[in-house]
Amino acid sequence: MIIGEIMDAVILCAGKGERLRPLTENRPKPMIPVAGKPILEHIIEKVENLVDNIYLVVKYKKEVIIEHFKNRPKIKFLEQGEIDGTGQAVLTAKDYVDGDFLVLNGDIIFEDDLEKFLKCKNAMALTEVKNPENFGVVVLDKDNNIIELQEKPENPKSNLINAGIYKFEDEIFEILEDIEPSERGEVELTDAIKELIKDRKIKGIKLDGYWNDIGRPWDILDANKHLLGKIKTSIKGKVEENVVIKGEVIIEEGATIKANSVIEGPAIIKKGAVVGPLAYIRPNTVLMENTFVGNSSEVKGSIIMKNTKIPHLSYVGDSIIGENCNFGCNTITANLRFDDKPVKVNIKGKRIGSVRKLGVIMGDNVKTGIQVSFMPGVKVGSNCWIGANCLIDKDVESNTFVYK
Amino acid sequence: MIIGEIMDAVILCAGKGERLRPLTENRPKPMIPVAGKPILEHIIEKVENLVDNIYLVVKYKKEVIIEHFKNRPKIKFLEQGEIDGTGQAVLTAKDYVDGDFLVLNGDIIFEDDLEKFLKCKNAMALTEVKNPENFGVVVLDKDNNIIELQEKPENPKSNLINAGIYKFEDEIFEILEDIEPSERGEVELTDAIKELIKDRKIKGIKLDGYWNDIGRPWDILDANKHLLGKIKTSIKGKVEENVVIKGEVIIEEGATIKANSVIEGPAIIKKGAVVGPLAYIRPNTVLMENTFVGNSSEVKGSIIMKNTKIPHLSYVGDSIIGENCNFGCNTITANLRFDDKPVKVNIKGKRIGSVRKLGVIMGDNVKTGIQVSFMPGVKVGSNCWIGANCLIDKDVESNTFVYK
Amino acid sequence: MIIGEIMDAVILCAGKGERLRPLTENRPKPMIPVAGKPILEHIIEKVENLVDNIYLVVKYKKEVIIEHFKNRPKIKFLEQGEIDGTGQAVLTAKDYVDGDFLVLNGDIIFEDDLEKFLKCKNAMALTEVKNPENFGVVVLDKDNNIIELQEKPENPKSNLINAGIYKFEDEIFEILEDIEPSERGEVELTDAIKELIKDRKIKGIKLDGYWNDIGRPWDILDANKHLLGKIKTSIKGKVEENVVIKGEVIIEEGATIKANSVIEGPAIIKKGAVVGPLAYIRPNTVLMENTFVGNSSEVKGSIIMKNTKIPHLSYVGDSIIGENCNFGCNTITANLRFDDKPVKVNIKGKRIGSVRKLGVIMGDNVKTGIQVSFMPGVKVGSNCWIGANCLIDKDVESNTFVYK
Repeated sequence: MIIGEIMDAVILCAGKGERLRPLTENRPKPMIPVAGKPILEHIIEKVENLVDNIYLVVKYKKEVIIEHFKNRPKIKFLEQGEIDGTGQAVLTAKDYVDGDFLVLNGDIIFEDDLEKFLKCKNAMALTEVKNPENFGVVVLDKDNNIIELQEKPENPKSNLINAGIYKFEDEIFEILEDIEPSERGEVELTDAIKELIKDRKIKGIKLDGYWNDIGRPWDILDANKHLLGKIKTSIKGKVEENVVIKGEVIIEEGATIKANSVIEGPAIIKKGAVVGPLAYIRPNTVLMENTFVGNSSEVKGSIIMKNTKIPHLSYVGDSIIGENCNFGCNTITANLRFDDKPVKVNIKGKRIGSVRKLGVIMGDNVKTGIQVSFMPGVKVGSNCWIGANCLIDKDVESNTFVYK
Repeated sequence: MIIGEIMDAVILCAGKGERLRPLTENRPKPMIPVAGKPILEHIIEKVENLVDNIYLVVKYKKEVIIEHFKNRPKIKFLEQGEIDGTGQAVLTAKDYVDGDFLVLNGDIIFEDDLEKFLKCKNAMALTEVKNPENFGVVVLDKDNNIIELQEKPENPKSNLINAGIYKFEDEIFEILEDIEPSERGEVELTDAIKELIKDRKIKGIKLDGYWNDIGRPWDILDANKHLLGKIKTSIKGKVEENVVIKGEVIIEEGATIKANSVIEGPAIIKKGAVVGPLAYIRPNTVLMENTFVGNSSEVKGSIIMKNTKIPHLSYVGDSIIGENCNFGCNTITANLRFDDKPVKVNIKGKRIGSVRKLGVIMGDNVKTGIQVSFMPGVKVGSNCWIGANCLIDKDVESNTFVYK
Repeated sequence: MIIGEIMDAVILCAGKGERLRPLTENRPKPMIPVAGKPILEHIIEKVENLVDNIYLVVKYKKEVIIEHFKNRPKIKFLEQGEIDGTGQAVLTAKDYVDGDFLVLNGDIIFEDDLEKFLKCKNAMALTEVKNPENFGVVVLDKDNNIIELQEKPENPKSNLINAGIYKFEDEIFEILEDIEPSERGEVELTDAIKELIKDRKIKGIKLDGYWNDIGRPWDILDANKHLLGKIKTSIKGKVEENVVIKGEVIIEEGATIKANSVIEGPAIIKKGAVVGPLAYIRPNTVLMENTFVGNSSEVKGSIIMKNTKIPHLSYVGDSIIGENCNFGCNTITANLRFDDKPVKVNIKGKRIGSVRKLGVIMGDNVKTGIQVSFMPGVKVGSNCWIGANCLIDKDVESNTFVYK
């Protein structure tokens, strides 16, 4: 296929993103903001100029996706039916796409421009990782034909893994229709790909640059950091007296940096956000629309979602804070263990090691009282009230009122 | 009566102001500072140019009033005797005033210039309120003669209420002398007024503009806000490097704003006060003489009485803090409920709703340790010590040492 | 003796400094930094130009002294043997010094230039104090010969005390060799001096200016304050935008003062130290090499030893903090009692009054969690972890993990 020829893209956005609770309580995973916009927006930007139509296969919290993208001419929405699985998601697009088409998982941040990839008929994008045992491992022959797929193998045969981006000819639909749903009642795309592999009809194409399959909260912060590393300074908002800005910082029109604040980029401060006076924004921070970080507060390496207020004397580090939260004065996050070991986080009931510095993962509409402390790696569900002086060292379920 | 003719004023300042405890523990209510000076000073400024003599009827903590006003030529002090009540207070002035005279309650903040009012023989100032059932309601005929007084009526006949300012001819003294003391042993001015009403001899004159009968702590903050809304910038104190001042701010001679602080008016910073460095003063704040608000501290919508120190990392919002207090590092006031309902305050044993944002009401000579928290609407009596790390969520009696 | 003639100095640095635990856990007392360098360095600077050789008599933690001074040409190290006592320490130098020589205690900060002193044959430096009963009291005849030594007398005969600086002829070694060790197995220098006194062969010479025998933590802070009072501004480090510096401040090359910070001298900020942004350094503070005092933090009247980090929203006042400590966000020291009495400190098991303002005395390698509070005068041993939200109101033994 030649670039420029008619082609469509199908992006899989139907999943629940349970490992990312509580961030996915009120939005599907692809709508989590990274570097100032939803993960899905980053994916769309990558393919928008390569395709004619973009079909977003939606289901869980579909209204959030539709509301955000409804006025974009190339974008159409397809709702996945009862049957689950990535294969079924692709099948949803059967009656819409024509000829070759791209399929992308809706939760990946990648740097490659897909150019090499588009030259193939059937192809799977690959990326090299240090821990292939947690992914779908791919084995290639010398002509880059995929000859084997290993799903989370104990003994991986390579460190190349399935990067969640595919190119298919439309015959894939017939193959998918022939596949029996799994025990879990799902039709998996990889089962169809295995049919292509039998005939050596699908290439494995290694992506260049950064790639991250957003599965756990710290993946979001890692992708955020990567993308912020690429921004260039653009200051369109209001910057008051004695504000000092260092590094690459985007301050959107309608944002205000109040007097005597200090900002160290890379950082993005969105429309309607107010910083300061006397606040300190540190690298790898994104303040979404209408957020407020006030007097003597410090935010570092964190994503603060829209309408959230951190008015005074607070510290938020290496954290993800949902929308419409309000932090009482002197709300402090810890982000480091005394023993410097990876911070432990509960992911779907299991306590697993994350990264050396991780703060709090908070849902939407949380209010904290004054002098509240969060221990590293705790998760706080949506709609919680955390009473004054509480020390939160365990996860807090959504809709909980914690008090002393 | 023609303006310019000889006339006296009698201001009633004898009461105990119990609803305003602990602020009235060491001063009578008229001496509580609002917008940088005592309530009584504001009243005197209103009448000073209209009258020849001002008689302050004093009793409770009279020495505070006398000390403050003793060198003012038009002002004389009259001490009320054993018998209580506003009528008795007026009678105290019987031998001093001659002809027509004004009577004013010593606890009202009002905007009207009294011009219309002075043209009457006998008159009561009126103001319109939304909740007349809590006041003395006045019914007028078409000629503005008062025809009825209802005291805190369940079914008010109008929303015009007695504003606590009167003009009388001296015959009022005879009427007052004929009145029997009430069951509580008090002679009430309204009982005398009822005699005037019988003969349609007293007009009701509606005041223009702001009026507030200071009865509860949040009335003080409301009046403070109103009066600060009228100030004009005047900076005579020392302002160090990189201080940013916005809005209307009065910084008196002998005050110092230290480096890198931010002040957002309206605000008044009195002689001898020190702000900063790196402090943040927000609108509707008054720092009285010799106060100190230091590093990273923030004060908003509050009155800080003289000699009080808030040296570091503290937040005081929507609060009234007495004299000679000292706040340990990181003393924080909460001023908002999670449920956004009016903050509850104990007033004379009853728990009543106040306003949406209210912090702490504190007497004099209170010391707090480090990391102390105050919940919205708590009252702390004079001479208390609040130990480090305490969370104060109940009122604290005077002379108490609270510790963990 | 004529100045310029060959002479040596012996400095006694072998002791354990137990009253200064935990500061002496990892260094001998003479190596505690005061005004930016070890006590011993200040002593050496005083005598360096007066003598040919400086013999440091070392024992406890000798490697710290040797490492620091090993490349200084005039300095030699002598290790004291099994027998303890100041006399034995001086004897250690017997085979090295020739003719007249100076002996200095290794733990005194003094201002005098020793000129008068050097003109004598045998001499003891004296200083006048208000509490001679805690020291060795000296009685002089009219020719300034010492005629009596009283050791911590109940009824001191003068307020002149032994200042810990001596000049001797080499016959002192013979006298020392004849002295029997005390019950504690120590040979004391004062016993030898008593022999000189018998023959009126030793003068008492009063020192001019400041003198402090560093025995207790607050002596360190007092000496630090005195020496900082003498510094002159020298700014060789990097000073970012809107930094305000007042008073005499030394900022060494390789130090950085980040944006919008405020520094009030006298203060010393050593190589590699980082201050700010938005930090506040107050008078009588020393930040040793590679320390960090960050956003909204304030340090006053304190010594922060090398590599210690105070990153955010913390207050350290009148404290001594060891090396390699890390303070969680919002770690606060209290330094004042509510009753304004001297802060009590445990010194070798006894609880004694110190000074009106004293914070925390902390060893090396301590980590604090977020929102930790220290009460005035507490001591925290080396290698402790103080968990989030802890209030430390008792001394903490070394190697302890305190948590809630």
